[in-house]
Amino acid sequence: MNIALLISYDGTHFSGWQIQKNGRTVQGTLEEALHRAFGIRVRVTGSGRTDAGVHAAGQVCNFPFGESVKIAPEKIADALNALLPADVKVLASAPVADSFDACRSAKKKTYRYAVYFSRREHPLLERYAARFGAVPDFTAMRQCADLLEGEHDFSAFSATGSSVKTTVRTVYSIGLTPRLGGRGVDVDVCGSGFLYNMVRIMAGALLDCGTGKLSLSAVREALAAGDRERLGKTMPAKGLTLLSVQYDPPLFAGEYRE
Amino acid sequence: MNIALLISYDGTHFSGWQIQKNGRTVQGTLEEALHRAFGIRVRVTGSGRTDAGVHAAGQVCNFPFGESVKIAPEKIADALNALLPADVKVLASAPVADSFDACRSAKKKTYRYAVYFSRREHPLLERYAARFGAVPDFTAMRQCADLLEGEHDFSAFSATGSSVKTTVRTVYSIGLTPRLGGRGVDVDVCGSGFLYNMVRIMAGALLDCGTGKLSLSAVREALAAGDRERLGKTMPAKGLTLLSVQYDPPLFAGEYRE
Repeated sequence: MNIALLISYDGTHFSGWQIQKNGRTVQGTLEEALHRAFGIRVRVTGSGRTDAGVHAAGQVCNFPFGESVKIAPEKIADALNALLPADVKVLASAPVADSFDACRSAKKKTYRYAVYFSRREHPLLERYAARFGAVPDFTAMRQCADLLEGEHDFSAFSATGSSVKTTVRTVYSIGLTPRLGGRGVDVDVCGSGFLYNMVRIMAGALLDCGTGKLSLSAVREALAAGDRERLGKTMPAKGLTLLSVQYDPPLFAGEYRE
Repeated sequence: MNIALLISYDGTHFSGWQIQKNGRTVQGTLEEALHRAFGIRVRVTGSGRTDAGVHAAGQVCNFPFGESVKIAPEKIADALNALLPADVKVLASAPVADSFDACRSAKKKTYRYAVYFSRREHPLLERYAARFGAVPDFTAMRQCADLLEGEHDFSAFSATGSSVKTTVRTVYSIGLTPRLGGRGVDVDVCGSGFLYNMVRIMAGALLDCGTGKLSLSAVREALAAGDRERLGKTMPAKGLTLLSVQYDPPLFAGEYRE
């Protein structure tokens, strides 16, 4: 049986999703819990990797579950949660078609980049958001977002050194939601897929447009030239959260809403 | 010179506000930073104590600052922040009248109790909110809140064993704000002052009214009889945040908005 899990994790103390020899990873922690709970050694396939420090509210993964294990699929979540640490939990578990692959079957992903505007650190905001020292103009940010929506070669918005077949991606929408009474913003980016560090570089460019440090034409030119150097810095991992992964037909729809 | 500080802390790893022999406290951490930064040994007066695990977005405190120390009052925040750990920071510093006492001068305080409704733990919500296993009815919660607003003897809403002159307090308002698309609620309580565990017991009673576990008449009777036993359990500390302390004239108004 093929089982899918909807999981959430606080990335603060994880060296990212992907299992590695040294370092505590989400994938490794899940595989260890599956071994302890059901005595199975399986590879858990995630919808995609998340970097060290990146959070997930609705990551999806799947794994082959032996027919010999007798448990109702929806109870797998509770069995794993009893063994998982507090910073990664299963929100739901369900049987899926044999052909389902959390990575290859994914149609869209939505990431949130959370920012608060302050000259000084706020301990209650620091864990899940990045601090930005100025208050950006929302209209300028919106104009930059409009520029980035759609199908583009996003190589300018990719960390150097990453090797992928194509750097063309479709960004379906970029939502800018004011938070904290105008003293913060949630940047929600829904796309077909994302290049390495893409959302974190986009968030930085949006904010720099908001303060006038970066012009719209400079963003347009960077996008056309595929020139990472013309854009600002990559924003820190902690502000990034994988909100949800969309499949067709929908999987775990309604299980998590921010 | 009398200096007031607006501070914020993540209470997770503090044994509360009040200094104690063993245990890491907010007051002790601030006093130590003042000693290291300015060589002064002073007592920091908070607007009130917060318990172990309780957070603060806008706690206010004051301390006597020697005339011999040469620093602009508004720069004290930065000097302290350079020495303070990540979980407690000064958001603003300002000179205040000699008669100002963060505790005795306080007119109103606003606390937030944050709850999310879920059968399973969500790692990204656990740190600053309490989990409640059912979805309460907001109308019933509102009716209970209406009952609790106003001037009452709140001894039924106080942990047993606390000794205070009077258990009469005025609750100016109880705001119920749906969160997470209806899967959570922020309970904002503004009052003249609060008894020990008062907001945490109120939050529990509001939720129990919302599920029908507690009737409005039972709350009315408990309030009249001053009977703590008739109300439900005290909700966990981590869901509670001291949002702000109000003074007349206003102090640090606009420095923090949730």
